Amino acid sequence: MPKPWLTSLEVSTPQEGYELAVLMARVAVKMTQPSDDIRRKLRTVYEQDADSLIASSSVVATHFATVAAANNYWKESQC
Amino acid sequence: MPKPWLTSLEVSTPQEGYELAVLMARVAVKMTQPSDDIRRKLRTVYEQDADSLIASSSVVATHFATVAAANNYWKESQC
Amino acid sequence: MPKPWLTSLEVSTPQEGYELAVLMARVAVKMTQPSDDIRRKLRTVYEQDADSLIASSSVVATHFATVAAANNYWKESQC
Amino acid sequence: MPKPWLTSLEVSTPQEGYELAVLMARVAVKMTQPSDDIRRKLRTVYEQDADSLIASSSVVATHFATVAAANNYWKESQC
Amino acid sequence: MPKPWLTSLEVSTPQEGYELAVLMARVAVKMTQPSDDIRRKLRTVYEQDADSLIASSSVVATHFATVAAANNYWKESQC
Amino acid sequence: MPKPWLTSLEVSTPQEGYELAVLMARVAVKMTQPSDDIRRKLRTVYEQDADSLIASSSVVATHFATVAAANNYWKESQC
Repeated sequence: MPKPWLTSLEVSTPQEGYELAVLMARVAVKMTQPSDDIRRKLRTVYEQDADSLIASSSVVATHFATVAAANNYWKESQC
Repeated sequence: MPKPWLTSLEVSTPQEGYELAVLMARVAVKMTQPSDDIRRKLRTVYEQDADSLIASSSVVATHFATVAAANNYWKESQC
Repeated sequence: MPKPWLTSLEVSTPQEGYELAVLMARVAVKMTQPSDDIRRKLRTVYEQDADSLIASSSVVATHFATVAAANNYWKESQC
Repeated sequence: MPKPWLTSLEVSTPQEGYELAVLMARVAVKMTQPSDDIRRKLRTVYEQDADSLIASSSVVATHFATVAAANNYWKESQC
Repeated sequence: MPKPWLTSLEVSTPQEGYELAVLMARVAVKMTQPSDDIRRKLRTVYEQDADSLIASSSVVATHFATVAAANNYWKESQC
Repeated sequence: MPKPWLTSLEVSTPQEGYELAVLMARVAVKMTQPSDDIRRKLRTVYEQDADSLIASSSVVATHFATVAAANNYWKESQC
């Protein structure tokens, strides 16, 4: 991934926050398996496996919670 | 999914928040497996698999926690 | 499920909150597998599978955390 | 389980909070599999399965987080 | 485990907090499988299983989040 | 790992926080399986297993949430 790839958690919209969460979920995979070739091969398998897809959606959900909190849920301050 | 599909986390009721959480759980799957055909095939399998159903319920629970916080749990401000 | 089925996260006691969390965990399953017959069949399997039971307990735990926060942990305001 | 079994999340010590979290993790299992006999049989299997033991520890961890927050981490109020 | 084994969540450093989280993850396993012999046997298996190791790391992460919050992240009050 | 290896959760940027989360996820594995040789062997397997990679990404996500909160999401204080 580009370096630096994560300079801020602040994004303009929930959807951009969601896309950032997807990126954050993938970077950890890249850090453990840096080979683009191997990841591409793994992808052809897990993108056809419902349980793998659900598991990666779960990682996105955890990161999205963090990004949303960092952006005060994209609303006026609560205090 | 429509683009933009996630413009705000604020919804009127907990039930709408729950439905948004279900959508948020599914979008990550769509982003990893964009083919409607393949997802439809996967669905015929995992919708008959208790463990897959429980796992997807878990992703919904994580997103619901975020949506609920974003809506101050649909109650008067705590501040 | 009744519609509306989730009008508020506020309940009187932790135990009612726990029961609400159990309901919230099950609704996502119902939304993915609407057939009562199929869910009944799946149930006969997973209710005999320790790992499935633990996994569903985990979903309840995540929802309970949200319900508990929504009810300020059933205690006087902290602020 | 006794009924009512969860009247408050407030306990005197972290250890009591941990024991409450263990109870909370087990009650969801009981609610899905009410038969003491079947649960006893399942137990003889999963108590010998490292992955099941780790998975149940994970549910305890999620409930403990809630109980700890409900007790303000057993320290003076932060407000 | 010693009794009492968890008298406070307050520790001096993040590293001590991490070690406490590891203990908290293990105690739930001990409570479900009290036999030191059986746990020792299970350990020889799961300590060679990457997925079990990752799963136990996940439980540590959940407990660490609680311990860190209890210690205000080991920094001056945020308010 | 170096001892002490975790003296503070405060880091300058989200990316450093992410790298800290990766370290925190790995240390628990090291504490359970201290042998560098065995971990190296396990790694050759799980780095080729999509589900293991997703599972380790999930642990990173949980730790990152803690590190991000500890750093007030790298933004001005909310208070």
